[in-house]
Amino acid sequence: MKILILGGDGYLGWPTAIHFSSLGHDVAVVDNFLRRGMATELGADSLTPIRSLHERLTAWREVSGLEIASFIGDLTDPSFVDLVIREVRPDAVVHYGEQPSAPYSMIDRKHAVATQRNNVEGTLNVLFAIRDLAPDAHLVKLGTMGEYGTPNIDIEEGFIEIDHKGRSDTLPFPKLPGSMYHLSKVHDSHNIHFGCRIWGLRSTDLNQGVVYGIRTEETELEERLCTRFDYDEVLGTALNRFCVQAVVGYPLTVYGRGGQTRGFLNIIDTIQCVRLAVENPAEPGEYRVFNQFTERWSVRDLAERVQRVGGDLGINVTVEKVADPRIEAEEHYYNPSHTKLLELGLRPHLLTDDVVAHLIETIQRHKDRILLGPIAPKTRWDPR
Amino acid sequence: MKILILGGDGYLGWPTAIHFSSLGHDVAVVDNFLRRGMATELGADSLTPIRSLHERLTAWREVSGLEIASFIGDLTDPSFVDLVIREVRPDAVVHYGEQPSAPYSMIDRKHAVATQRNNVEGTLNVLFAIRDLAPDAHLVKLGTMGEYGTPNIDIEEGFIEIDHKGRSDTLPFPKLPGSMYHLSKVHDSHNIHFGCRIWGLRSTDLNQGVVYGIRTEETELEERLCTRFDYDEVLGTALNRFCVQAVVGYPLTVYGRGGQTRGFLNIIDTIQCVRLAVENPAEPGEYRVFNQFTERWSVRDLAERVQRVGGDLGINVTVEKVADPRIEAEEHYYNPSHTKLLELGLRPHLLTDDVVAHLIETIQRHKDRILLGPIAPKTRWDPR
Repeated sequence: MKILILGGDGYLGWPTAIHFSSLGHDVAVVDNFLRRGMATELGADSLTPIRSLHERLTAWREVSGLEIASFIGDLTDPSFVDLVIREVRPDAVVHYGEQPSAPYSMIDRKHAVATQRNNVEGTLNVLFAIRDLAPDAHLVKLGTMGEYGTPNIDIEEGFIEIDHKGRSDTLPFPKLPGSMYHLSKVHDSHNIHFGCRIWGLRSTDLNQGVVYGIRTEETELEERLCTRFDYDEVLGTALNRFCVQAVVGYPLTVYGRGGQTRGFLNIIDTIQCVRLAVENPAEPGEYRVFNQFTERWSVRDLAERVQRVGGDLGINVTVEKVADPRIEAEEHYYNPSHTKLLELGLRPHLLTDDVVAHLIETIQRHKDRILLGPIAPKTRWDPR
Repeated sequence: MKILILGGDGYLGWPTAIHFSSLGHDVAVVDNFLRRGMATELGADSLTPIRSLHERLTAWREVSGLEIASFIGDLTDPSFVDLVIREVRPDAVVHYGEQPSAPYSMIDRKHAVATQRNNVEGTLNVLFAIRDLAPDAHLVKLGTMGEYGTPNIDIEEGFIEIDHKGRSDTLPFPKLPGSMYHLSKVHDSHNIHFGCRIWGLRSTDLNQGVVYGIRTEETELEERLCTRFDYDEVLGTALNRFCVQAVVGYPLTVYGRGGQTRGFLNIIDTIQCVRLAVENPAEPGEYRVFNQFTERWSVRDLAERVQRVGGDLGINVTVEKVADPRIEAEEHYYNPSHTKLLELGLRPHLLTDDVVAHLIETIQRHKDRILLGPIAPKTRWDPR
């Protein structure tokens, strides 16, 4: 298959690209290095010493003998998007190419507008390019579980059957996104659904939980193939950040009461889920939503787990409850469905003590690279 | 009250501005003349000989002795929006300032992206300006009934109580928007709801039906005060376009089977509804949705009504079913709730034969200005 990875230089895009390449697919990546630029802007950096995209591609060629094509450019530029789609003629487009951070989108108006513009316009350009130049291509789009928020009912996978006043319909699941970033993903979902309904496009929207982990089968082959690993307050996700805090002797910063419960998954399972979606494409006209996570954790339980495993490794880990800089429910009901990927064959890698220990040990190897400045929470949902 | 009208030079914005002014409010208008530019782009023109905004404001001063301030600029420019909000310090912001045409948004990718950028970014800028500079201002935003599409259940006003697997929550009503324009309004709704939930803003989202009519109490005072009236395939709404077609002896172009049913309202009732929303503001933190229409019509019934009334006036009117250039259900269930504005005191002006006759007669007075070129449907939802 010809597979185009948008955002192929990112935390998940890069391991996805080399995974598909290793399976024998014809892979091309697109990136504008937005995420690297964000880290520079924030004074943060990847824990792992990631190489430039060009060096990575060379390393992959040397390690595997396989070629990955690359296109450097911006998805908000329609002529660039057309050029790529015309040149690659993809069977599947895996779309990670968005601004991925909720706190970043909440820094101020400029960052909020930039996030929505980048994500929404980029995806619109991709939809039109697929419609006009590769209408049979399957768009596999990374959404987020955060699109749903925390309603008081079970969350279904994208759609819900509603009985109302004696009639019934299956309709998009209502959304309560919690940041300007999450809103941009909700907008994307509506735009993509429209493209499927009106133009007969085929798409799978992967509403992903919080990803943790640092290594995949292919990134382990050689140090130059490692993926980025962020741990700062803006770009780092909860478990990754906690493990880094444990290693440097910084208290684990739990926001508020810590009852915020989310779906989590190992980076290995992200790659697996995306592969399952690509190998089992949506039908023409079908807009399919999978909830992509393997288990639920509250932030509090996650911190306690890191504290305990850290203790086993001889690290004295403390947990500090800090005022929640976000505006969100600190205790809530949370029971989202996530059976569709399991039905396609997903075999979850759950968060065992061994996984946490291994993550901590990997971070210890890069301990001298850790920057303390950008870890503490600064970005508030309401700065007034 | 200090009332700021965004899009105050438009079909509805202008009559709204002079209505609030006539009631003794302190009114300011904002416009970037997007709609006039769109007509120029399309080779279309208002049936009525509208004056420039400056001439209108002068005419209003001469007729009423009242002053309306004006700000010429673009809502996608954050510094302009801040300047206006800081200068006016509004109690209410009535937001019509968006690209208002579904067909325009479907012309091609450029128009689709421009529509979503203009509408979404403009509204984001307004939300941040209100948050930071006038947090108690009540945002009255014009949405559209088209955000809901045509689900197979009764449409509620913005929110629906869902019972699901033994639990229950009241959640945003699921959306099935039918064009890039309608999508932009759905995105706005989510963004505004977020602003109310997270920052405690107060907003009323008026999901408006199709507006018809040409005259309000204030526009009737003097010819220079008339509002624009569009009848072309891109900017004209169904009844307005049918009446113009009747006058020029052009068949009424019913799209497909004509069973498309929508909510309609007289322009007089638009003004009345907006006044009711402004006079009865949402609470801080409240995001309120009103479905703003007074009666349901199918396109087919509307055409037959114009045909019959035209006949009574001695005009031979024919109806022609043309292939639907849109992709939409041509027969469907449609029963949206619309009680909240009635509860606030709305007294509907229904579509009687007299109203249709009066509309036709007004159009006849301007018959020599009608341009035939832009009437026939050209913009297709799927141009492939």
